[in-house]
Amino acid sequence: MSIARVLPSLRTRAASLLNTIQFTHPPNCPCHGVPNHPHHKQHNEMASLLGGVAGKFGGRRFASPAGLHTGEREYAFEMAASSIRFGPGCTREVGMDLANLGAQNVLVLTDPNIAELPPMLTAIEALEASNINYTIFKDVHVEPKDTSVKAAIAFAKNSPKPFDAFLAVGGGSVMDTAKIVNLYTTYPDADFLDFVNAPLGKGLPITKKLAPLICIPTTSGTGSETTGTAIFDLTTAKAKTGIAHRALKPTLGICDPLNTRTMPPQVHASSGLDVLFHALESYTAIPYNTRTPRPANPVLRPAYQGANPISDVFSLQALKMTVKYLPRAVRDPDDYEAQEKMLLGATLAGVGFGNAGVHLCHGMSYPISGNNKSYRHADYSVPNPLIPHGVSVAVTAPAVFAFTAASNPDRHREAAEIFGIDTTNVPDEAVGEKLGEGIKKFLGELGGQPMGLKGLGYTRGDVERLVEGTLPQRRVLMLAPGMKEPGTEREREDLAGLLERSLEY
Amino acid sequence: MSIARVLPSLRTRAASLLNTIQFTHPPNCPCHGVPNHPHHKQHNEMASLLGGVAGKFGGRRFASPAGLHTGEREYAFEMAASSIRFGPGCTREVGMDLANLGAQNVLVLTDPNIAELPPMLTAIEALEASNINYTIFKDVHVEPKDTSVKAAIAFAKNSPKPFDAFLAVGGGSVMDTAKIVNLYTTYPDADFLDFVNAPLGKGLPITKKLAPLICIPTTSGTGSETTGTAIFDLTTAKAKTGIAHRALKPTLGICDPLNTRTMPPQVHASSGLDVLFHALESYTAIPYNTRTPRPANPVLRPAYQGANPISDVFSLQALKMTVKYLPRAVRDPDDYEAQEKMLLGATLAGVGFGNAGVHLCHGMSYPISGNNKSYRHADYSVPNPLIPHGVSVAVTAPAVFAFTAASNPDRHREAAEIFGIDTTNVPDEAVGEKLGEGIKKFLGELGGQPMGLKGLGYTRGDVERLVEGTLPQRRVLMLAPGMKEPGTEREREDLAGLLERSLEY
Repeated sequence: MSIARVLPSLRTRAASLLNTIQFTHPPNCPCHGVPNHPHHKQHNEMASLLGGVAGKFGGRRFASPAGLHTGEREYAFEMAASSIRFGPGCTREVGMDLANLGAQNVLVLTDPNIAELPPMLTAIEALEASNINYTIFKDVHVEPKDTSVKAAIAFAKNSPKPFDAFLAVGGGSVMDTAKIVNLYTTYPDADFLDFVNAPLGKGLPITKKLAPLICIPTTSGTGSETTGTAIFDLTTAKAKTGIAHRALKPTLGICDPLNTRTMPPQVHASSGLDVLFHALESYTAIPYNTRTPRPANPVLRPAYQGANPISDVFSLQALKMTVKYLPRAVRDPDDYEAQEKMLLGATLAGVGFGNAGVHLCHGMSYPISGNNKSYRHADYSVPNPLIPHGVSVAVTAPAVFAFTAASNPDRHREAAEIFGIDTTNVPDEAVGEKLGEGIKKFLGELGGQPMGLKGLGYTRGDVERLVEGTLPQRRVLMLAPGMKEPGTEREREDLAGLLERSLEY
Repeated sequence: MSIARVLPSLRTRAASLLNTIQFTHPPNCPCHGVPNHPHHKQHNEMASLLGGVAGKFGGRRFASPAGLHTGEREYAFEMAASSIRFGPGCTREVGMDLANLGAQNVLVLTDPNIAELPPMLTAIEALEASNINYTIFKDVHVEPKDTSVKAAIAFAKNSPKPFDAFLAVGGGSVMDTAKIVNLYTTYPDADFLDFVNAPLGKGLPITKKLAPLICIPTTSGTGSETTGTAIFDLTTAKAKTGIAHRALKPTLGICDPLNTRTMPPQVHASSGLDVLFHALESYTAIPYNTRTPRPANPVLRPAYQGANPISDVFSLQALKMTVKYLPRAVRDPDDYEAQEKMLLGATLAGVGFGNAGVHLCHGMSYPISGNNKSYRHADYSVPNPLIPHGVSVAVTAPAVFAFTAASNPDRHREAAEIFGIDTTNVPDEAVGEKLGEGIKKFLGELGGQPMGLKGLGYTRGDVERLVEGTLPQRRVLMLAPGMKEPGTEREREDLAGLLERSLEY
């Protein structure tokens, strides 16, 4: 028993090591350049290999002058979140907020649907009332692509008077696009790939202070109003990727439950499933202090750093709230209490996963949504076939948590109890299956879910393609608990197994 | 029963109303100046009276252009916290942090004791390693006074080259002094009372962006590294007061468990008691949405806004951790796990109370510490008699929570359970007494506590003076649950009753 408990930890370390060698910059340990460096003698070849994250980034060197050893395991975690205001009707304060921030010229980003809805109208009325100069960009692409993001950046750069603040009114797509526009107007000469997550982009750290960004979410899902993460499709690589750095986080998230009242039931369901697995994946991600390498400079410490004692508090609370309130919010469009709790839950989960990370369900969701041919989900009135993000995240969850439970039976047992399962007489080895069953039951009772990849139109023949689409998601795969050998053939096998077990249930 | 439950809420509203009339600026509702204001007709005299917080502050007008009604109850809460880094040894990253922030000339504040201890030596080594220019001010006064704070401000203002960043290494006194120095070097022409909490000061909101401030706490108590609060003695008014605004919060708190290892047992105990009641007072403070008036401008929304769903998560977690780990941290100086949990608990409680507030124990603690004649607490090697802050907070707690329980029996029952009391068969009316007994038992077992005001040298004849010293603490008294008529003779009676019941137990 004790050996079984030790093994996953050793595996995790080995896995991280391989990840690092494969996906970071060439070895460049700062100690090597320092004569008589006090730690030099303790330095072994492995540490040298692992020292890769120190080095030159965009011409700026992030050295480790205090003798930090990058080859060692992580020893610290960092927690950062946007300020959050929460209350029904508080959208109308946004004009005063922008005035208080000294904004002179604001770019308001939204999408064509939201542009006509009350959240946007209230926000614009508030800007007018505070005499804020603003320009509206309402062509944000839902499920943004690099091309749509670049169009928004170009729009902002072409303004005759530079924008000094940004306001995003919408769901994750709008908020994420606004973050990226803020970034590339602050770094007008940067190449688009400079800040995109490695290995697809260069993953440079952000060191300039961005302009103020206020986010007003209109869905209870992404939690993007609290995080430094922005997700989009990189069309050239045919993959979902993004930009992730604490510096990207909004100045303020204005969470107004009045703004989520127009969501149809299945939009509640799928955005709520995103919240559910933000919470459960971040709570079960590898612990921060098993991650290697320790960064050479604190600016290089990733926001997706693994589970830690502060993210745990947020993630667990969000998990409890979602299991309790999501079914009510989906069932009854007039259950404002449940809707309000779901908006709060989305925000709490945002702080949780924004400071810990997500793993397998999210990693596999990207190719599941991306390879869709003809599936259309109820309540989504969009021109093309669409598997909503939350649906593609949830579909593998029963298999995923049955698989990951061995890495931390206690946490998975706690989660199973939250799903209403009595685990009193369930041995550790069986906790994962029980949790998987609890998730299946939850999805079934929620209604409208595909209950397996076959329900989305996938067959066994599609598994390999879905594995291929998952493998580049290193940033989340490296946080996956219980993976035997990330970066190797074994990882492929693990992913294929999870997808096969997700075909139908 | 239902009437009994309604009454406290009505009382709370009436109380807040009286508080407002008494302690805010003259009525000045923005709607009155707007012809044909859409809400004008709904406007009644009460709302007008309550509109006081709108108005002129330091020559700048915070109007309410969106038609917000300041006479109404609060409808939103706001959550803001410093970024936190947590990990043993992470003090040595601070030089890189300041370099990353672009700091050219840093003022390092500490006190004479800490100046010679490892936390300070490590921090200075880190600054040197990153080639940061710095100046040390090591004369921070423990339990700061306006005079000592002004001396620190004068030191900073007299620097030949202005400081562009601040580093605080120490306990709450050091961190609070650093916040105030940062404020008044950003506003060099301000009068010292401009930003001090009303009614003793003018309580102006802070609208300029302050310089970066990094805090490295060396005690597990104040949570000041996460909050926008700074406390000191206003000698001219013979009262504890402070400055509280979100803008004052540090940029980053570096919580390094290695830095709290040198605390003697009774310093662990009293700083841990501060954490305990940060958690329990903020969890039982009046709910944010019973506070009146709603602010006319979001910049006027107080950080001490009442309990809310996000502060609750932090406060409850900190309460559980403190009850579990504080006795271990006090008993065994080598129990590093318990010490580490207490540092984390202090930080979590800081986020909790920093976004909710504290109430009666803290309100009465100031005159209890301030009127001390000869009491000396073990392990505090200071020249003058001293009642440590946490001790003066804890001494009234058994009486306070027996009294406040009627305002929210469920939360007090939850707290009693955390203190190990089985409340299964305890009726609501008896929950307060049970919680009070649980706190007494906890204090007794912790050891070294006075077990009543008599143990600190006070007698029944001192009660009136202690009441007088508590009454100016409006900012915390207005959050006290279950007070019948704040601002009236009844409030005096309530406070006198609490102090009398705290004489010995």
